[in-house]
Amino acid sequence: MLSFQELSAKFNQTFEAKQFPASPATLYEPGEYFLQIGGKRIRPVLCLLGNELFNEIHSDAYLVAKAIELFHNFTLVHDDMMDEASLRRGMPTVHTKYDSNTALLVGDVMVIRAYECLQNIQASYLPKVLQLFNKTAREVCEGQQLDMDYAKMETVSLEAYIHMITLKTSVLLACSLEAGAIIGGAGENNCRHLYEFGRKLGIAFQIQDDYLDAYGDAAIFGKEAGGDIKQNKKTFLLIHALEVANPTQKNKLSSLLQRNDEDKVQQVLAIFDECGVATWAESLKAKYMQEALAHLEAIAVISDRKKPLIDLANYLMNRNK
Amino acid sequence: MLSFQELSAKFNQTFEAKQFPASPATLYEPGEYFLQIGGKRIRPVLCLLGNELFNEIHSDAYLVAKAIELFHNFTLVHDDMMDEASLRRGMPTVHTKYDSNTALLVGDVMVIRAYECLQNIQASYLPKVLQLFNKTAREVCEGQQLDMDYAKMETVSLEAYIHMITLKTSVLLACSLEAGAIIGGAGENNCRHLYEFGRKLGIAFQIQDDYLDAYGDAAIFGKEAGGDIKQNKKTFLLIHALEVANPTQKNKLSSLLQRNDEDKVQQVLAIFDECGVATWAESLKAKYMQEALAHLEAIAVISDRKKPLIDLANYLMNRNK
Repeated sequence: MLSFQELSAKFNQTFEAKQFPASPATLYEPGEYFLQIGGKRIRPVLCLLGNELFNEIHSDAYLVAKAIELFHNFTLVHDDMMDEASLRRGMPTVHTKYDSNTALLVGDVMVIRAYECLQNIQASYLPKVLQLFNKTAREVCEGQQLDMDYAKMETVSLEAYIHMITLKTSVLLACSLEAGAIIGGAGENNCRHLYEFGRKLGIAFQIQDDYLDAYGDAAIFGKEAGGDIKQNKKTFLLIHALEVANPTQKNKLSSLLQRNDEDKVQQVLAIFDECGVATWAESLKAKYMQEALAHLEAIAVISDRKKPLIDLANYLMNRNK
Repeated sequence: MLSFQELSAKFNQTFEAKQFPASPATLYEPGEYFLQIGGKRIRPVLCLLGNELFNEIHSDAYLVAKAIELFHNFTLVHDDMMDEASLRRGMPTVHTKYDSNTALLVGDVMVIRAYECLQNIQASYLPKVLQLFNKTAREVCEGQQLDMDYAKMETVSLEAYIHMITLKTSVLLACSLEAGAIIGGAGENNCRHLYEFGRKLGIAFQIQDDYLDAYGDAAIFGKEAGGDIKQNKKTFLLIHALEVANPTQKNKLSSLLQRNDEDKVQQVLAIFDECGVATWAESLKAKYMQEALAHLEAIAVISDRKKPLIDLANYLMNRNK
């Protein structure tokens, strides 16, 4: 069995090759550019780990892993357009480096390329994997839509936020794991538990992401900290702060959200601190992590095989970027 | 056997139902809106006709037909954004009626929905249909990219234009037919001829489209005639005119392209007339039509079964909208 670092290295190696044909270069060069920016490649590795949990890694798992990473990058290219983000992982986004039309089409062809990877998996698993992939892909779009909808709303409940995050982030992590498991011949019950492990882990992952955006070290994190705060983004942190703040804090927070003071980030963070937001986030993350691990526990394979997944979960929860 | 009008009515009936879930309405209502604008639904009917050529129509052919129509509409939503088109079939485009972010995501979820239709076809045909669909989808994106690239170039050869049109338009018509044939159990050779029939028909179709954009009756055509001319769009007509024009005509045409005179359309049309563009287009269309029919001829089924396809081809070539 391979550890998640080893699988990560293996996946990166196969993913270094060009993912698109050479021509038309005006379409495919921007696509390759974005893929080369990198990223943590967590999803494809989850797919390989999901496969390895039940079996020797099958070459089809690499195809599905690739499909998932391409799909993820498709969403990033388009999300960056919607968010008007100029940087991604410290590098210019596609619509910034090229233009909006290119970014639009690069995203489109990237999702199609993802499906091209799937077409070559063993026919006996194809319908099941395709169904899971499609459902997940649609949910991710729904999550992105809710994210944009919420941005226009004054307040969002924690429940609604978790629903959105589940769609936008968690289900793809869960799908990655389950798709690997399907290729590994896993039964329905095991698939379901692994999916739930991924879904819960995804929520914990987002809590960590929101935390890092507010408290992360810019040099390590790869983007300026406080970006979410500047954009009044409803995050776990802001939603909780608004829920527990006393009237004075709430008023201050509301008025900060309406302005763009130079020290907005510091001032909002000060209120977060007063409200104990960081501690709360840490304990909520731990709760989801625990629930995730309970599902992993319930999977009927010997516990030794689960070690790489536990390692990955711990790595994700303790990462600083 | 059903005629193409009957199949068209049958498809429209199944396609009238909602194609998306209810929620989130901010995402799916704009999607339903665009689908309800209508259109000729040529591609899905081609799929049904391709199926009927070899067999009784199988319910899977309806799934593939739906997938193809959804895919086509996905490209329209995104193409309208790229072209900054405010109207489609006389109705506001998605990014105009809603906004760009919505249109972007509506397109994304529409292509995923297309793949969701494919997931339910008989497992024995799924890999073959998925491969054809993916290859075609990627080529359509490549065609759109080339179209945008050509818009920035001073001149485009007829050969390059036909290559672009083949990718942007023809291959989807060809794919529609072949996908239906696959579901109908057609052999490789028959599939290849049917694909080629569709590909050639597609080029003839585009010649007719370019012709209608210049010479069509706005009231019937559903959009203002001369749109391509106003935008200096490289069409069959303009490319040929630039190739055969004498120096005086060429200079006049070049200078017209650089300006936006009120009577630009009339003036360009006058040069088209001098250059015999309409007659040339008619004969080029007839040539492709003939080649298309030769491929249809070569398909090893009794000629009676081919009648609906011949009728459709004739309808497409003689349409005025």
